[in-house]
Amino acid sequence: MVKNGLPMASGKKAGISPTRAEDFPQWFQSVVRDAEVAELDHVRGCMVIRPWGYGIWELMQRAMDDAIKASGADNAYFPLFIPLNYIAEEAAHVEGFAKEMAVVTHHRLEKDADSGDLVPAAELSEPLVVRPTSETIIGRSFAKWINSYRDLPLLINQWANVVRWELRPRVLLRTTEFLWQEGHTAHATEDEARAKTLEMLEVYREFAESVLAVPVIPGEKPESERFPGAVSSLSIEAMMQDGKALQAGTSHYLGQNFSRAMGMQYTAEDGGQHHAHTTSWGTSTRLMGALVMTHADDNGLRLPPRVAPHQVVIVPITRDEPAAVLEAADGIAAEVGAASVLDAPLRVSVDRRERKPAEKRWEWIRKGAPLVLELGERDIEGGVVTVTRRNDLDLAREQVPRSELASKLPQLVESMQAEYLAAAAERLGSRTSRDVSNVDEFREFFSGDDPDSGGFVRAPWCADPATDAVMGELGVSVRCIPFDQALADGAECVISGAPAKVEALFAKAY
Amino acid sequence: MVKNGLPMASGKKAGISPTRAEDFPQWFQSVVRDAEVAELDHVRGCMVIRPWGYGIWELMQRAMDDAIKASGADNAYFPLFIPLNYIAEEAAHVEGFAKEMAVVTHHRLEKDADSGDLVPAAELSEPLVVRPTSETIIGRSFAKWINSYRDLPLLINQWANVVRWELRPRVLLRTTEFLWQEGHTAHATEDEARAKTLEMLEVYREFAESVLAVPVIPGEKPESERFPGAVSSLSIEAMMQDGKALQAGTSHYLGQNFSRAMGMQYTAEDGGQHHAHTTSWGTSTRLMGALVMTHADDNGLRLPPRVAPHQVVIVPITRDEPAAVLEAADGIAAEVGAASVLDAPLRVSVDRRERKPAEKRWEWIRKGAPLVLELGERDIEGGVVTVTRRNDLDLAREQVPRSELASKLPQLVESMQAEYLAAAAERLGSRTSRDVSNVDEFREFFSGDDPDSGGFVRAPWCADPATDAVMGELGVSVRCIPFDQALADGAECVISGAPAKVEALFAKAY
Repeated sequence: MVKNGLPMASGKKAGISPTRAEDFPQWFQSVVRDAEVAELDHVRGCMVIRPWGYGIWELMQRAMDDAIKASGADNAYFPLFIPLNYIAEEAAHVEGFAKEMAVVTHHRLEKDADSGDLVPAAELSEPLVVRPTSETIIGRSFAKWINSYRDLPLLINQWANVVRWELRPRVLLRTTEFLWQEGHTAHATEDEARAKTLEMLEVYREFAESVLAVPVIPGEKPESERFPGAVSSLSIEAMMQDGKALQAGTSHYLGQNFSRAMGMQYTAEDGGQHHAHTTSWGTSTRLMGALVMTHADDNGLRLPPRVAPHQVVIVPITRDEPAAVLEAADGIAAEVGAASVLDAPLRVSVDRRERKPAEKRWEWIRKGAPLVLELGERDIEGGVVTVTRRNDLDLAREQVPRSELASKLPQLVESMQAEYLAAAAERLGSRTSRDVSNVDEFREFFSGDDPDSGGFVRAPWCADPATDAVMGELGVSVRCIPFDQALADGAECVISGAPAKVEALFAKAY
Repeated sequence: MVKNGLPMASGKKAGISPTRAEDFPQWFQSVVRDAEVAELDHVRGCMVIRPWGYGIWELMQRAMDDAIKASGADNAYFPLFIPLNYIAEEAAHVEGFAKEMAVVTHHRLEKDADSGDLVPAAELSEPLVVRPTSETIIGRSFAKWINSYRDLPLLINQWANVVRWELRPRVLLRTTEFLWQEGHTAHATEDEARAKTLEMLEVYREFAESVLAVPVIPGEKPESERFPGAVSSLSIEAMMQDGKALQAGTSHYLGQNFSRAMGMQYTAEDGGQHHAHTTSWGTSTRLMGALVMTHADDNGLRLPPRVAPHQVVIVPITRDEPAAVLEAADGIAAEVGAASVLDAPLRVSVDRRERKPAEKRWEWIRKGAPLVLELGERDIEGGVVTVTRRNDLDLAREQVPRSELASKLPQLVESMQAEYLAAAAERLGSRTSRDVSNVDEFREFFSGDDPDSGGFVRAPWCADPATDAVMGELGVSVRCIPFDQALADGAECVISGAPAKVEALFAKAY
């Protein structure tokens, strides 16, 4: 059953309120809350990432960290605080971030003598910015560490929290504090630095598709969307279930802008002094937002098995003989957990909590565990186990012979990863139009509020800033200039009708 | 050769200046810098953890994380910023931390119209504290998540950066920003919470000894040294090579102090409402300081193999036929890397950098890699490899037949872990005195500036605050009341001569 382009669980009260069709943004918030992934709490715009959400993040982190290390980068850690004079040095950079910086001005609290309230005391001689990104501080360390061409390339990655003050925060998508990795590299030549920028974008594309099951379109950002201080910014763009784009990773070639500002020079083989060419690249907890908006449904989260903290959850149905049922559940967990699926041991968990079995089953469905097994005394007698597959829209209970579990469950888990990717790729393909050929069709495509209206448009673009007016009016932007250009000779800009320079990817975006 | 109790590399210019005997504190700073572990840079008191240091930290983190998860705790993440009113609520807690808190007061930078300088703008209605620890914020989340006794125990751990403003910073030991894990748990009963406090201290003891090869003395902190807001604080105390103590991990029973302040209540089986009993426990990058001060020598760092990012480094000596030598080096790396040592595949690295072989060998010795292999054309012809063992004081080069590497290297690595622990345990034992019986002997023991004077004293103590004067004068404190008490009937306090209440561990401390 399909409604408004969004598949619905048939004949069943939806678990998440509102549904996607009713109110997509609110549905997203509800899924993130009800699946216990994360919540905005305590401080405006700041997030608590709950154990289930953090478990997802740990699996993402492990896979991404492996890929980054395989690219040759080493992890390191740099200060949270950045002196004001550091950040002021690269003009475009400070311009881009000044409006969203948290500033530390004091280093002590004291009781106010009159009111008795705690107030900031001991003012700093120079305010410190809480890092919004670390080019300026890591670049200065690079300048110290790099002397000769032999020290290049220098490839560093950092896992850290960063702060960008958000006036309109949204959980996972736009939060004042978020977790991320930021890679920073320095190279002897422009060619080598540009190649690294491209290489890391490819690492991100591969990660998004094979780990998160989120297909993406890689390309270059238009000038107006470049990272502050970059010469060229690349991105991967994913499509959410409402047809909007989400930037899922960026990789920047910074030229010599930062190396000149920081005196990052090296002595070449011929003795000459040169400024290094640098790059930076990052992905963040925002990717968990992409995961939710790509795969979740009206019953809650659906997790691709590679990022599911538990791939199989066993719910024991215990009344009279709890010990026997628990023993049988543990036996299944041990047997099935010995299998290897998607390059790792299958992750199985027995839910022993003191709660009603039905409540547990729905909790794991809401949390997106790929397979939920129920096991009671009658099942044991009958030699069967009841299996719910999270990718079945009806969430039907299927009886599987106990003897077949060890061969069948790994297959089901493995195929679910591929199925989620295929479904998302099908959506990306079917909702990307290449047939929008003039501004009227462009306006029509991006008007309408139904979650199933709109999507991506790939069309010729003149790259003239004058086209911003129409885009701004519709809330649309150029997401990227896709690498796989298909621009016909003499093609005209879809907005202005003027000769087109590139084929662009247009969309509304998060 | 032993000088001042510190073994010296014989007949060889020491790599680190000054040596331990010359100036222990300065030696420590030099080792941390020269081994490229970390450096204070950019912001007063803040640390850059360099790739080699971060590699050590990652291995520590992985082992600790496994142990914490095995204890039943899940990882999660909570906001970096804490509202002022949160931190003000637990009186002893705010008292303890007020003097060292970094305070965020603004969320934007603007150009000053007159000077053109960037200045903080957009003042926050309530200042935010950068977390010095997270009891107040995690406790409030617990209060929301806990309803019934069925929700208990709640066991959470967080890996995060924290900030405590340091007026006299020292790299790794006392830094304004540091990395740590902080565990927070809530329980239905005092007994259960106290048992968890003890259980996690035991996790720390086991980690320090088996992973870091740092033997420790577990015990309870005296009242004056308790965590602000705690009912009871436990710690493990390690002895550095200069005889001083370093607190290597703490675990606190917080009673109902925080749960009352935050309204963390649960409904019991009988329907009654109760406040939970909470604990918190933490270890930090400070442990890397303990690692250095326990194992390093006058040639630099010495890493117990479990935390050595490379356990075996192969330095190819290439002149005429680099390809053949590199091929042979890769062959050794592949063969030796297939072995499993200390529960993990042996970590082998071939150093292909364009640098002189002697320079590389000394770099890896300074960085503490357990085994350094050198391999040139003549070695290949002779069927041998030159091995330097980092635990050999003379750093002698030993010729090992190529055919024996696969069996011999894993043994050497494995035994080095045990040897480092045994050496540290021997020091802890021999420099802990149980024979100091009155205040004159106490003064004598703790006077004198030689690195080999002093150590730990275990002696009867009356626990009277009046004993603080003598201790303060000597720069000594009670590190803990060891769990394995050996207090004779009628024993007299080593300082006051009054009847003793406990056997205490006295030491100077970091």
